[in-house]
Amino acid sequence: MSVALPLAEGILFTDYYQLTMAQLYYRAGLHETPAQFDHFFRNYPNYGDHQAGYCVCAGLGTLVEWMQRAHFGEAEIACLRAQRTRSGCPMFADDFLAWLRRNGDFSSITLRAVPEGRVVHPHAPITIVEGPLAMAQLLETALLNQINFQTLIATKAARIHESGQGRVVLEFGVRRAQDRGANAGTRAALIGGADYSSNVGMSCALGFPPKGTHAHSMVQAFIALGGSEYDAFRAYAEVYPDDCLLLVDTVNTLESGMPNAIKVFEELRTKGHKPVGVRLDSGDLAYLSIQVARMLDDAGFPDALIVLSNQLDELVIWQITDQIRREAPRYGMDADAIIRRLVYGVGTNLITSMGDPALDGVYKLVSLRQNGEWRPAIKISETPIKTLNPGHKSVWRLYDRRGMATADLLCLQDETPQAWRTITLRHPSDHTKFRLLRAEDVSAMEPLLVEVLREGQLVYELPTIEAMRAIRQQDIERLDPGVRRLIRPHEYHVSLSQALWDLKQRLIQEAQRG
Amino acid sequence: MSVALPLAEGILFTDYYQLTMAQLYYRAGLHETPAQFDHFFRNYPNYGDHQAGYCVCAGLGTLVEWMQRAHFGEAEIACLRAQRTRSGCPMFADDFLAWLRRNGDFSSITLRAVPEGRVVHPHAPITIVEGPLAMAQLLETALLNQINFQTLIATKAARIHESGQGRVVLEFGVRRAQDRGANAGTRAALIGGADYSSNVGMSCALGFPPKGTHAHSMVQAFIALGGSEYDAFRAYAEVYPDDCLLLVDTVNTLESGMPNAIKVFEELRTKGHKPVGVRLDSGDLAYLSIQVARMLDDAGFPDALIVLSNQLDELVIWQITDQIRREAPRYGMDADAIIRRLVYGVGTNLITSMGDPALDGVYKLVSLRQNGEWRPAIKISETPIKTLNPGHKSVWRLYDRRGMATADLLCLQDETPQAWRTITLRHPSDHTKFRLLRAEDVSAMEPLLVEVLREGQLVYELPTIEAMRAIRQQDIERLDPGVRRLIRPHEYHVSLSQALWDLKQRLIQEAQRG
Repeated sequence: MSVALPLAEGILFTDYYQLTMAQLYYRAGLHETPAQFDHFFRNYPNYGDHQAGYCVCAGLGTLVEWMQRAHFGEAEIACLRAQRTRSGCPMFADDFLAWLRRNGDFSSITLRAVPEGRVVHPHAPITIVEGPLAMAQLLETALLNQINFQTLIATKAARIHESGQGRVVLEFGVRRAQDRGANAGTRAALIGGADYSSNVGMSCALGFPPKGTHAHSMVQAFIALGGSEYDAFRAYAEVYPDDCLLLVDTVNTLESGMPNAIKVFEELRTKGHKPVGVRLDSGDLAYLSIQVARMLDDAGFPDALIVLSNQLDELVIWQITDQIRREAPRYGMDADAIIRRLVYGVGTNLITSMGDPALDGVYKLVSLRQNGEWRPAIKISETPIKTLNPGHKSVWRLYDRRGMATADLLCLQDETPQAWRTITLRHPSDHTKFRLLRAEDVSAMEPLLVEVLREGQLVYELPTIEAMRAIRQQDIERLDPGVRRLIRPHEYHVSLSQALWDLKQRLIQEAQRG
Repeated sequence: MSVALPLAEGILFTDYYQLTMAQLYYRAGLHETPAQFDHFFRNYPNYGDHQAGYCVCAGLGTLVEWMQRAHFGEAEIACLRAQRTRSGCPMFADDFLAWLRRNGDFSSITLRAVPEGRVVHPHAPITIVEGPLAMAQLLETALLNQINFQTLIATKAARIHESGQGRVVLEFGVRRAQDRGANAGTRAALIGGADYSSNVGMSCALGFPPKGTHAHSMVQAFIALGGSEYDAFRAYAEVYPDDCLLLVDTVNTLESGMPNAIKVFEELRTKGHKPVGVRLDSGDLAYLSIQVARMLDDAGFPDALIVLSNQLDELVIWQITDQIRREAPRYGMDADAIIRRLVYGVGTNLITSMGDPALDGVYKLVSLRQNGEWRPAIKISETPIKTLNPGHKSVWRLYDRRGMATADLLCLQDETPQAWRTITLRHPSDHTKFRLLRAEDVSAMEPLLVEVLREGQLVYELPTIEAMRAIRQQDIERLDPGVRRLIRPHEYHVSLSQALWDLKQRLIQEAQRG
């Protein structure tokens, strides 16, 4: 066991009702009843004027690491022992606390999950948790907290990466992030689409070189002490001759920053070094990119990068490149050559998922085992789409003849859709909507969930961030272009098998008969 | 020194450019030049259809604790030593790393700050950092990260508290929070306006009892195992006879949940216990509150609470209470009596500051000392309001004859506005806007900043969360009702003294002469 987690980051990183319910289950003799919970989200992030048509899942590795460390130690038990009822009695009884002290970890949990980096869609489980009711229930809060947030940020990063069309994306958001949530956000951004991050500690912990050069304050400092922007740039170039990337907008981008940067770049060239480029952090970034590219070209630095920052997101990047495409020819410039030298530094809008700062992932009881038999649980909602898909399920992704993902199919776990001649895809809630696919029109079919923990033991090799990125890129490339659109994307099909649909209808009817 | 912070949470919880700049300052002999940075925000959170007219500052205690622990240990130095330039050489030289190893902590930093819980406004510094340029610069990222986020969340909590008009507000957001950012969010919510939180670990760490009862899954579990909602409620009441608060919407609120809850409450009453109340988590919460209150009244439980949850925020709470006021009389009910028994459980919208998930706090170099003399630094922006207010400043809050806060005044540090017969309040950027206040119209005047760290030593007693709440409540009550409005609030005045205005104009002119 590694160093104990701080109280607020260990197993008590949970909602209080998980503990009051756990004691109730203990008292009712249900605490060790095998239970299954499905974790899924209901809606893609909707950023207002733009919407996601897919998500990229992330956070599993972080969760698994936490699950292997979190447990009820003395500090956690003492904290619960101190809780009082309204009448001043201990809220948690000694026998329950003794049980928690012995059994209060996740060594009894079996976890199936969609690997990080994969594209995921609403209603299809991302993680499925099986274990004794009390501990499986207790896991809810931390699981949602970790996977919801990282999936949200990985999704935003994927969109920004898409919009950047292969240009380097840098994650710059720590200062506007949510306290230590910054670190999970950096991790998710690196999985989802950022190439590097400015976050030093987290980049190092994940094996990535952190990125960044200098701020306005460095130029200000030189000026305040009687020097100039040129002095600041030259000092920077002297210390970092092979990594010279200069922020050129402290005084005036075109009249001061660029002439000074070019002078310093020329000095570097004389000494045999190759300048890296410039950063623009204010003004009309499209217009300035064109002018700056022209100045760099004219000075003989056609490879110097132009790093853009300042409230970028996927739409702003799209608008900037669009504007460059339309405007560059007026200045006799090749738009594509300008765009190819751009690098995007994205801060606030990425790390907060601006426009929709929470994924609505939920964790629902779908099955309990009694007398050796699994009993499906259902929760009826007045909103039909919110009624649970019950029971033990598997999730299959179906690819069409072009090799593009055409639907995610939720089946009962013992169904074998590979063997079917015709696959019926039922809409999860609308009985009038279904689709038939002939086996010969399905080029491939794969289960999305892998077993990660078997009774607490890691039975899956957690991939590297690089491997997750490759998975993400492959999955996104197999999405229909309409699903990848930034604005009003086409809706991807998530469907139920006929057998799952039938079970769901039967349970709804039974529940309504009460 | 306590246990070492993990790599990603220690002093490397920063942006890479802080370190490249630090080495440049070291190389240029500027690393120990005394410097002053101001931290302030430029805009109140704007949630779209509603906007904040004030912020509640928070995060200082968390920051100070971090500053006292963060330092360059062997692990941090090793991480930097591994960084490479583009030509494959070490990015950081041994002499710089040796200096960091010796001097890389915040024991040289003097910090003045506005205490947590106080109301704050744009452009007026919330924290002022003074210390050797390299370390004062390095602090930027972590300071912004911690104070921006907690101030954002405390502000949202204050608005929800205002909208709740004194009813209990519960923070329920961990599952939709930003990984470990949840803990800072819980702390900020408790400072800003939440009475309690469901976050067990953080509540315990801060000395608050966590709150919560049970989820839908508990009722589902009993039903799946052949029991009923009533069985679930009864089991709960048996374990928690004095803390019986039941979630009544799993099956059907009015037709099943409420009759079952009342039956259990009656059984509790027979046994001499007092039921706490019910929770509603779906449906038309205003309509249901009225019906549920009537059912509870009819059954003789007029004191039973009604806890509301499900996507609440300050506007939704306002709309719910407004609807109850208008509708209750139609059912012969006293609207105020219903509203008095409401409790608000607020999750996603609070912990993410939905609508505006980042505060735009910045950290700007305003002064450097050379040859024993402070030299003001300025950064001109094309947006006049973004041009820095230079130099060493103090911030005064002025109260009018009614005792209401009428303006925050930024002065040069050696000015004594208490002694003035007439106080000139200059708009920070618009030279046509100013206001004159006669001393006799100012009932009180107080400096907002306190000294917290003097060269790394804590010289301020960090108040308890309870004390911060009292400060917050007092400050909000001294705001004009127009400033407190939820939608399109009146703009509070933040002004410059004549002397600060004159310095700013002189520096702008000098900078423009270049």
